[in-house]
Amino acid sequence: MDKTLRKGLQLVEALASSNTPRGAAELGRELALTRSNVSRLLGTLAILGYVRRADDAGRYVATLKTWEIGMRIMRRDPLRRTAQPFLRALHAEVGLNVFLSVLEGGDVLYIDKVEAETISHVSAQPGMRLPAFLVSSGHAMLAWHEPSTVAARVQVHPRADGLDMTALGADLFLTRERGFAMTVDGSRQGVVSLSAPILVDGYPIAAVAISGPKNEVTEARRQVLVSALRNAAARISETLSDLGQVDYGETAGKAMGWSG
Amino acid sequence: MDKTLRKGLQLVEALASSNTPRGAAELGRELALTRSNVSRLLGTLAILGYVRRADDAGRYVATLKTWEIGMRIMRRDPLRRTAQPFLRALHAEVGLNVFLSVLEGGDVLYIDKVEAETISHVSAQPGMRLPAFLVSSGHAMLAWHEPSTVAARVQVHPRADGLDMTALGADLFLTRERGFAMTVDGSRQGVVSLSAPILVDGYPIAAVAISGPKNEVTEARRQVLVSALRNAAARISETLSDLGQVDYGETAGKAMGWSG
Repeated sequence: MDKTLRKGLQLVEALASSNTPRGAAELGRELALTRSNVSRLLGTLAILGYVRRADDAGRYVATLKTWEIGMRIMRRDPLRRTAQPFLRALHAEVGLNVFLSVLEGGDVLYIDKVEAETISHVSAQPGMRLPAFLVSSGHAMLAWHEPSTVAARVQVHPRADGLDMTALGADLFLTRERGFAMTVDGSRQGVVSLSAPILVDGYPIAAVAISGPKNEVTEARRQVLVSALRNAAARISETLSDLGQVDYGETAGKAMGWSG
Repeated sequence: MDKTLRKGLQLVEALASSNTPRGAAELGRELALTRSNVSRLLGTLAILGYVRRADDAGRYVATLKTWEIGMRIMRRDPLRRTAQPFLRALHAEVGLNVFLSVLEGGDVLYIDKVEAETISHVSAQPGMRLPAFLVSSGHAMLAWHEPSTVAARVQVHPRADGLDMTALGADLFLTRERGFAMTVDGSRQGVVSLSAPILVDGYPIAAVAISGPKNEVTEARRQVLVSALRNAAARISETLSDLGQVDYGETAGKAMGWSG
């Protein structure tokens, strides 16, 4: 492990997560680094364009360079590239927010979104994480993992305190039985979310979700929505399988062998 | 300048730009680093989650971690946050692709886009760069810079070879006179693009653009489109000015003092 590289990246991450410019002394305290060490690394990062001095007090902010490099990676991502036309078609069909996400540890990481212009409620954005046990996308993926993997991912989650594992287990069983996940008031009050896994060789490499306010995702409408959702997930799965180059490392590593 | 940090970031950038997994020997040749140096840095980056081994031959790919961190920075970006509702409204009004971009050196960097679902031509995506002299967004910003700054930005551009600086100068003069930029077949054949600068204290900190195929952006329609575009740019300018915290470093640094 190269410590200088680690410290430099920690500084970029700290500034990326900060709402305000940060100085070397403050960053040093947060990351347990000396102030001179931080100053030197910030100087290098500034020359390389990752951060810039924001004021005369010598405080720094993250520039858009990290974003620009990250977008280069994302533009090529085979999952997103493959899924995008199907997500758009699903959105056109149902008129609700459509999401694509993967599992990262105990979190759902949102990869893409097609947003309904008329829906005003705040919802997840690409690049955001939410606890997998809280949202339907998470349930859709966890339900196709081994119970031991689910427990390992969920129980160490910082927000898992007080979580009813029995209820979660029952929900995941039901999710698997019916082939889709549903949460009501999951991460947002008043929002219903429906999700289906994208399975490649039986692995839930990602999830597709649709969500909307309760009065739009009515019980009467759910069957049609679920059918459109599952169809989209199945077609993405097929296309990815045909590509034959799916490798989602962490996500695909520990899938289930349930016979159920 | 801390060399280890620089080399580590160069490796992330190289993998971010690569369509295929890359090995240590190959990366070492490209970046003029020793193979053992590259191997050590890749090992650190893998532990930190920025890259991962893609195959048994020991080749690596970039993970989505850089993207995720970059999205954290972008979600907070005051320009994008302020502009987004106006971009959506403009899109709803004109039904064409709408873009937000900033100037980075001699390039336009696209920050955001609201895409027309019915338009099939390929166009710029967020995170992409194009030479500022080639696209209307670039003209809209360059036209509000000092001629010397324009020359400095454009002439060192790797794609500026054979560029007619006199024609560009005339176009920028016209752009400034009429208050908007227009390119026909600028970066894409058959596409007309219209842009207006977002001026804060006279500085062109960004540009708003709309673009579409020639048969949709007809001469007859242009006056209405330009009016909608300039209105959107003016309202974003006002809102940013009211926020009073605009600091676009590089972009805002060298603005013009033309009295014209």
